[in-house]
This record gives sequence, C-alpha cells and structure tokens, in this order.
Amino acid sequence: MSVIAFIGLGQMGAPMAGNLLRRGHQLQVFDLNPQAVQSLVEQGATAAASPSQAARGAAFVITMLPNGDLVREVLFGDQGVCEGLSTTALTIDMSTIHPLQTDRLIHDMHQRGFSMMDVPVGRTSDHALAGTLLLLAGGTPEQVERATPVLMAMGNELVAAGGPGMGIRVKLINNYMSIALNALSAEAAALCEALGLSFDVALKVMNGTPAGKGHFTTTWPNKVLKGDLSPAFMIDLAHKDLGIALDVANQLHVPMPLGAASREVYSQARAAGRGRQDWTAILEQVRAAAGLTPQ
Amino acid sequence: MSVIAFIGLGQMGAPMAGNLLRRGHQLQVFDLNPQAVQSLVEQGATAAASPSQAARGAAFVITMLPNGDLVREVLFGDQGVCEGLSTTALTIDMSTIHPLQTDRLIHDMHQRGFSMMDVPVGRTSDHALAGTLLLLAGGTPEQVERATPVLMAMGNELVAAGGPGMGIRVKLINNYMSIALNALSAEAAALCEALGLSFDVALKVMNGTPAGKGHFTTTWPNKVLKGDLSPAFMIDLAHKDLGIALDVANQLHVPMPLGAASREVYSQARAAGRGRQDWTAILEQVRAAAGLTPQ
Amino acid sequence: MSVIAFIGLGQMGAPMAGNLLRRGHQLQVFDLNPQAVQSLVEQGATAAASPSQAARGAAFVITMLPNGDLVREVLFGDQGVCEGLSTTALTIDMSTIHPLQTDRLIHDMHQRGFSMMDVPVGRTSDHALAGTLLLLAGGTPEQVERATPVLMAMGNELVAAGGPGMGIRVKLINNYMSIALNALSAEAAALCEALGLSFDVALKVMNGTPAGKGHFTTTWPNKVLKGDLSPAFMIDLAHKDLGIALDVANQLHVPMPLGAASREVYSQARAAGRGRQDWTAILEQVRAAAGLTPQ
Amino acid sequence: MSVIAFIGLGQMGAPMAGNLLRRGHQLQVFDLNPQAVQSLVEQGATAAASPSQAARGAAFVITMLPNGDLVREVLFGDQGVCEGLSTTALTIDMSTIHPLQTDRLIHDMHQRGFSMMDVPVGRTSDHALAGTLLLLAGGTPEQVERATPVLMAMGNELVAAGGPGMGIRVKLINNYMSIALNALSAEAAALCEALGLSFDVALKVMNGTPAGKGHFTTTWPNKVLKGDLSPAFMIDLAHKDLGIALDVANQLHVPMPLGAASREVYSQARAAGRGRQDWTAILEQVRAAAGLTPQ
Repeated sequence: MSVIAFIGLGQMGAPMAGNLLRRGHQLQVFDLNPQAVQSLVEQGATAAASPSQAARGAAFVITMLPNGDLVREVLFGDQGVCEGLSTTALTIDMSTIHPLQTDRLIHDMHQRGFSMMDVPVGRTSDHALAGTLLLLAGGTPEQVERATPVLMAMGNELVAAGGPGMGIRVKLINNYMSIALNALSAEAAALCEALGLSFDVALKVMNGTPAGKGHFTTTWPNKVLKGDLSPAFMIDLAHKDLGIALDVANQLHVPMPLGAASREVYSQARAAGRGRQDWTAILEQVRAAAGLTPQ
Repeated sequence: MSVIAFIGLGQMGAPMAGNLLRRGHQLQVFDLNPQAVQSLVEQGATAAASPSQAARGAAFVITMLPNGDLVREVLFGDQGVCEGLSTTALTIDMSTIHPLQTDRLIHDMHQRGFSMMDVPVGRTSDHALAGTLLLLAGGTPEQVERATPVLMAMGNELVAAGGPGMGIRVKLINNYMSIALNALSAEAAALCEALGLSFDVALKVMNGTPAGKGHFTTTWPNKVLKGDLSPAFMIDLAHKDLGIALDVANQLHVPMPLGAASREVYSQARAAGRGRQDWTAILEQVRAAAGLTPQ
Repeated sequence: MSVIAFIGLGQMGAPMAGNLLRRGHQLQVFDLNPQAVQSLVEQGATAAASPSQAARGAAFVITMLPNGDLVREVLFGDQGVCEGLSTTALTIDMSTIHPLQTDRLIHDMHQRGFSMMDVPVGRTSDHALAGTLLLLAGGTPEQVERATPVLMAMGNELVAAGGPGMGIRVKLINNYMSIALNALSAEAAALCEALGLSFDVALKVMNGTPAGKGHFTTTWPNKVLKGDLSPAFMIDLAHKDLGIALDVANQLHVPMPLGAASREVYSQARAAGRGRQDWTAILEQVRAAAGLTPQ
Repeated sequence: MSVIAFIGLGQMGAPMAGNLLRRGHQLQVFDLNPQAVQSLVEQGATAAASPSQAARGAAFVITMLPNGDLVREVLFGDQGVCEGLSTTALTIDMSTIHPLQTDRLIHDMHQRGFSMMDVPVGRTSDHALAGTLLLLAGGTPEQVERATPVLMAMGNELVAAGGPGMGIRVKLINNYMSIALNALSAEAAALCEALGLSFDVALKVMNGTPAGKGHFTTTWPNKVLKGDLSPAFMIDLAHKDLGIALDVANQLHVPMPLGAASREVYSQARAAGRGRQDWTAILEQVRAAAGLTPQ
C-alpha cells in the first residue's frame, strides 16, 4: 500500500479518493473546500494545509481538477506540489484538460526532475463511486506498471494509451467524436420526424448499418485502412445521396448544419478526383486537407 | 409464382431479376441496354419492347432505375407502364430516388387507379447477386403482405417501414446518417493522427463508448427519449470539450468543418437555456430549430 | 417598334410588359391568369390563347416565369412557343432559373434552329414599374445588339455578361454573394450586441475597412488578383483573430456557423502551407479546393 | 508634452514610439529585444531596465504586445508596470488581444487604483510609420480626452468606441467581419470561375448591389434596423436562390462551406416562421438564436 497525495475532491475526486482509502492506501488530501476535506478525513485520510504538504512523503500525487490552469497552480504555484515532492514520486494528473497544456505540464515537471503521467477517466460519477471508471493512461511502460495498482483501485478497465500525454489525447478524441456525433444524430432524428417516419423503424434499419454501428469497425477496416479505395459505394453516389437528403431537409425546413458541412467535404473530395473512389476514401480526403502525408 | 414486369436491368436490377427467375417467377423485362436484356432472356425471361408491353398481363411491376425522372418516364411516358397496366397489378419502385418524388409518383398512380409501393434496397450488388438484400418496404399492410413472397426472392430481410413512401424515407435517413458520419469519423481519425495518438488505441476506447456505438442505443433511450433531461453529462461541458478539441485541431491545422458546425449547435443550445440539461437534449434543440413541436 | 410575345405576367412580368407597350411595341401576351392578361389588354396588348399563338409573327419572345420547368413547358410543350416561332425571331428568357437548365434550354432551342438568349433582371418590382431594372444580358454580341432597344424599354442599365447563359450566371453569383453576406453580417451584428458595443460605432469603423467595403475592390486587386501573396496581413494572423472572435462568441453563446466554417477554411489554408501568405491568398486556397487549376 | 512609458517595440510598436518622439514626447522604452530598444534610444528615447522602471514618473504607459498574457505579465508581473506606476498615470493598452482578457486587465488595474483604457489600432505597419493609424479608443470620455493628444501623434483618425473595453471590441467585430468575408468572397469568385463567367463582369454587377456594397448601409437601414420586415425580397426566395447556387456549386464541385452554412441559417429562419419576411430579418433570426431579447 502507498502514501498518496490526492488534490481535488470534487464530484469525481471525492469518490475516487474514497476508493483508494478503502483499498488500504494512506491518503494526504487537499482541497479548498473544507467540507470535502472533512468528509475524506472521516474516511481515514489526513488533511494537508497545502499541496506541498500533501505531497511531502507521498509516493504518488494525484490531481483531479477542473482545468489546466488550476493543475499548473497546484503543481508550480506558491506552496505547490513541487515544493514538497520527492523526485522518486510519480505525479498522475487525472483531470480532463487541454492536451497541449498537459504536454507543457509534463515537460515542466520533467525539467524539475519529476516524473509525471496523465490518466484522465471515462464514464460518470456513479462509476467513480463504484470504482468502475475507465482509466486512460498516458505514460511510459514503467510509469503505467507502477501506477496500475493504485489506478485499479478507482477503475475496472485500464487502457495504456501510449507515452505521456496520450491519455488525455485519447480522451479528447473520444469526447470529440461522441459529442459531435450526438449533434449529427439529432439532425437525422429530426429529419426522420419531419418526414413522418417512425423513429423505431429508422433505428431498426440503422442498427444494422454503419449509420448505427459506425464506420470504424464496419466499412473502414477492409477498405481505406487497408489502402483499398476500389468502390463498394462511390464518393459520387454518397455525395448525390447527401444532396437529396439536404434538399428534402431544406424543403421541410429542418436545419442540418453538420450535414451541410459534410456535403462540402464530399464535394471537395470530388474536386480532388476522388469521385469514383470508395466512400471510405473520405478519410484520405480529410487527411490531405489537414496536410497529413500519405500513409 | 407470378408474372412480373421488371424494368431496369443495371448493376442491381439484373441480379435481382435473375433471382426472381430462379425462384420460378415469370419475367417480362425491359431495359434500353439490349445486352442486359439478352442476358436475362438467356436465364428465362421474356423481352418486352416497351414498359407498357412488359406490364401487360403482369401481377407485379418492379422498377429499378437510376433516378426519379426515369421512373416517371417509364410509368407515365409514351408506351409507359400505365398504358399496359392492369388495375389489379401492384407496382413496386425499388429505385433510390427523392422521397418527395416518390410521393408524387404514388399519388399520380393512385389517381389513375393503380396501386404502387416503394421498396428500395440496402446493401450492395454482391448481396443483390446472393439474394440477401435488405428490403425497405413502404406500403399498406396489404401491399406489403402481397409483395413479400416476391420481395423475399431478392432479399433476406424485410423491414415494413410504414405506409407508401416510408421505404424510401427510411433509406434516406439511413444514408444521410451513414454518409455524414463517415466524414465526421474522418475528422476524428485525422485529429488522432495529428496528435500522434495510436488509432488502435482510439478505437479500443471508442468501441466502448457512444463515440463508437452511437447514441441511439446508448445515451438517448434513458434520457431524452424518455423526456428526462437531468444531466448525466451537461451541454455546457460538452460545449467546453468541443471547444478544446477544436482549439487543438486548429493549432495542429486539422480542418474539422463538422466539428465546427456542431459546436455552434451546442452554442445555440446554451443560448436557448439548455446549458445545464443533459447532452442528449441536443435532440430537443435541433427539433426546436426545425420548428418541430414539443413531443 | 417590334412585335413581341410576352409570356408570364406576374409581379415582375406585368409591369415589364406595360413598359414595352408604353414604348410603342406591339405585344401578344399569354398567362394562365386571365386577370393579368386582361390588365395588359386594357393597356393595348393582344391576348393569345397559347404560347404558340403568342409567338406567331413575333420578332421577340420574352419569357418571365417562376422556374425553369415552366420555361421548358412554355417553349417545348404542347402548343408551346416552338410551334408558332419563326426561326428569325429571338427568344429572351428573363426568368431567374437554374443556370444549367438555361444551358439546356438554349441548347435545345438551338437544335431546333431557334435563337435564344438569357436576360435575367436585377432590382425589385418597383424598378420594374419604373422601367429602371438592371438587365443582365447573356448572348452573342449580335443578340445583345438586337435585343438592346427592346430591353432598354424595361431597364436603365444593361450589362453584357458574355455569351448565352452568362446573364443567369452573373445573377447567380450576385445573389449568392449578397444572400450569404446577409447572414454573415447578422452574425457580426449579433456578436456586436452581445459584446455591449454600439452598432453605430461598429458601422463607423467597418465603413472604412474591407469589413464594410468588401474585398473585391480593396484588398484583392493589388494582392491576390495580381499574383502577389506577400503578406500585408498574414493568413496565420487572420486565423488567430477568427479564433478569438469565435471564442468570445462561444463564451457569450452567439452561434456563428459562418464564422466557424470560415475558420476551418483558414485552417486548411495553413495546412496547405499558406500560413505566411497574405490573407487574400484564401482565394487561391478555395480555388485549389475546387480543383481549379492555378491561374 | 508628456513623459510616456512605451513597452513593446515590435513591427507596430517601434514606429509608433518613433512618432511620439518626433512630436516631442519624452519616452521611457522597454522591450526584451535590445536592438529594438537601441534604435529608439538613437531617436531620443531613454532605455528602461524593466516595465516598472519605464513606468516610473510617466504620465502615460502604452503597451503594444503580441498577446494578452504578455500584457498581464508586463503589468502585474515581477518588476511590472504596477510596481512603478503613479495612480495619476493613464495606462493605454494598444495591443490586439482577447476582449474578455482586456476586461479583466482593466478590472484588475482598477482594483489597484490605476486608470486604464484600450486603444487597439487599425491599418498596417506602413500606416504606423506614417502616423496614420486608425485609433479605436475604449475609455471614459475623460480618458479619451486626456489620451487624444498622445494618440493622435500615432494616427490620423480616432473613433471613440465607448467605455473601457470597447476599443478592443470594435476591433474584434471589424476583424471578424473582414476575415470571414474574405473567405466568402473567395467562394463566390471560385464559383464564378467554375461557371466560366468573367470575374470583371461579376464585379461590375456586384459593385452596384449589396453583394459588393454590403448590407449595413444598403438593405438594412430601411428594413430590419427600422423594425420593418415587410418583404422587399423574401427569406423564402433568398433560401431558394441559395439552394440553386449550392446545387450548381456541387455539380461543378466547388466546395462552399460558408454558403452551405448560410443556407441552414435561412432554413432555420423559415422553420421559425420567417419565410415571408424580408431577407434582412435574418438579423432577427440570428439574434434569436443567440438568445438576444427582441429589440
């Protein structure tokens, strides 16, 4: 069992710290909210007067804070973690912050001789309570190995996302995809309703196609991800079908900004000579627009 | 077994007609391409000199054509289907065309005393060959029942989508969702690559979340579809996370037009006072923007 | 003075026809609305029972109709213009329709041996009454010369836009630009209001810059249109400033979908290596995305 | 003549400081770049070892820095302006930074008893050299009056934008509008080229319409800005024309993401029941989407 500094006892942090205590770890906690601290003390934690005091003697420092500026303040500010931290300790930022800020934090810690990794979590506060969070670990294999027993006290699934900074990156991608997809799904559902079509019927159909199952595991693996752009379904036809959908939506005045944006992406793919490629070639189109070199 | 007029022997139509023949139906085929006709004749079909001739004596007329103008021409043009059609026959348009055009075709057929339904198909020409198409049937229960034996010669799954016009509608929704989702997926994958993150890691994570599984069967059923907008994940936070993703993408110059469009949808949801509602409330936001009345 | 067939006596067509009469032309008019016809007859026109009858003996045929399908019907339908038209007459379509439809109409008329040009109009029905319309003439120099005396009875400014089809094209470009610009202007004004800034102050400033004066006559002529992409204001900085504006707008929840879309265009320009080029290079970026060859 | 601290001697700051010297002001300058300092010293300025030293004894402090974090550091950091500043001095930030950051800076200065205003500049480094910048002054009437003699040494036009923070706001709005308009103009020009239309012809037409002259001073003043939404040109028709333009663009594969986004705004206006209002009502639509209360 380890001595762990835990900084940030909010809606997620408090139950995560509680689970560490229940597994027998020794916690030194810090939060600006005295009630949050008191609650953990009652569960067996020691209250620290500052981040530096919390860090003193700890083998692990865990930060779970609302944004990157706060993480920076807690680490490098007056009476911050660095003032009390041993160079043999491992700092784990579990906050969801800006990835490029994560990079700078890790870099700045490294410059001071400290080891740091990022392990943001997935799922909800219910899972935090139950100790069943998804742990997205960015760190060296050594860091991940060392942190795993501590982390698994808070979650039940750990993904080693790659080196330091990769945990927050995979969280970002996942959130991006799910949040934007939510808006796209709403456009489809609104159009469905405006067309007088049963949503249950639409779901029954979409559950069996990439519309519902996504492309990552259906259309992409055997086509674009293998470099095969021979058409199972052509960009030109996908573009045409999008045009019909947008025309219908506009006649029924269902605004579909994501759909409209996507048609222009397909249009650009056609301009780039991809009209007769498989629709999964849209990945290559977007990669090219981003200046990513051919794979 | 029935006498069936089959008009349109292209990449999809030809194998579909072939399967009807193999099941013992009697086919009267028409196409402008003599080779396509010849091939079906060799399989046992009778060649017709015109759509009207094909329709004469048929219990079913199936059209499988590239666009709605052609379907109209074939039905109502000179020597068109209507000139040879019995009022007891059932016309089935299996083409993928504009839904509002489908409505007009069905309406115009009805005015002339003819029965018509729409049954566009899902999947690919490989499935057309194998007789394993997905059949999206728009028609009255009587029409669907009557057509089923014929349709199931061409496919292995039939979805009764609702009344006439609903087959083409569900196809439209499905295509809209899958085609736009393809572009959104490409943005996520390009950002992943620009961030130096392993796509396999991203997939592993997304496969367990709405990012990969979609929202229709994960987050929506217990929240917005039930009318519960209490937040499991707030619109405000989703908006913030999108903002971070777009900021990162713009720093790495990965253009994300769909992501950018989606952020403005969340922004509008916040302006409408939905910031503290569950992120699935984005459906209600899009419905409101479309002027759809509260459910 | 000429014998002119005038077909389409709506809100625009009626006053245009009236002005032709006042200038001494002899009009043979057709419209489905008997009241519209009667009003012109009272002004001195002759009523025709069909487009073909209107066209008989006319030196000019003018069509002013709501959409291209109607123009096609009027020209080529049963008792259409073509049935009564002399091959020495000049047909002038003044409707606002789809340019590619205009092309087909002109092509089909030409195939039948008839001369046709397109002259859509600018400005409003007030200007139609006053005879001060803007005339956007697409035709050969001979067609334009021949039509000018007739056209100038209806307008006070004629722009020779190039060969047949170019009149409708320039109208399309002008409408596109002004309609989309209207929406963009609304975003700027809403952000202005949300920022608590006086709109009068904003106008005073914008009236002196490309924001109010446009780029066509200010920044473009000496830079991108001359092939000079050395930076007066860099793409990178323009992208940064857009990012600030969008960040502010999103904090104030002012949805700015056009602004969001434009940032991604600048982002793509940066990905294409244009970050240090002049901001007018965005034209070259958009041209490249459209597959237009370097000028 | 005044004693002025000038901090930030970059491409804009250096010539601005030079003009202050030429008008007889006494300058105490600071910059991290010793060559930039040396050049000003040769023109008569005094070099300061820190922002605080530069501020000592100065009646005005001018900051001209690349971003807001630097302004904050220069004002409040170690040896920052505040350490040497008299409470009777006026601090003028002329940098282009985030407006909400400007607000916080002014607030924080005020809390320390200091007076601060924002005066970002318009135009280019050529104008900075010539002393002909556009000065966008955000400040109380007293601040503006006091600063005017100093400011007019650097520019030839001063706009009093309103209270503190309004200078940077009007700059933001102006930049937003001109930068996004640049991208929109590029779409129109690319479509023009793809249509084979002479750009000179398009310009000739657009120069006489809102497409080239903007809406702020043409269509808006007598309609939406007066609360008159009776249609000179209906939203429904504007939406239709945009649809034609986008259809043409997509057929010619000219991607038009801004145009596509704008059509969805008009679509939403129609969903909100504005289809028969004047097209300038799009302002009211965007205001409503932003949650701005009816005027």
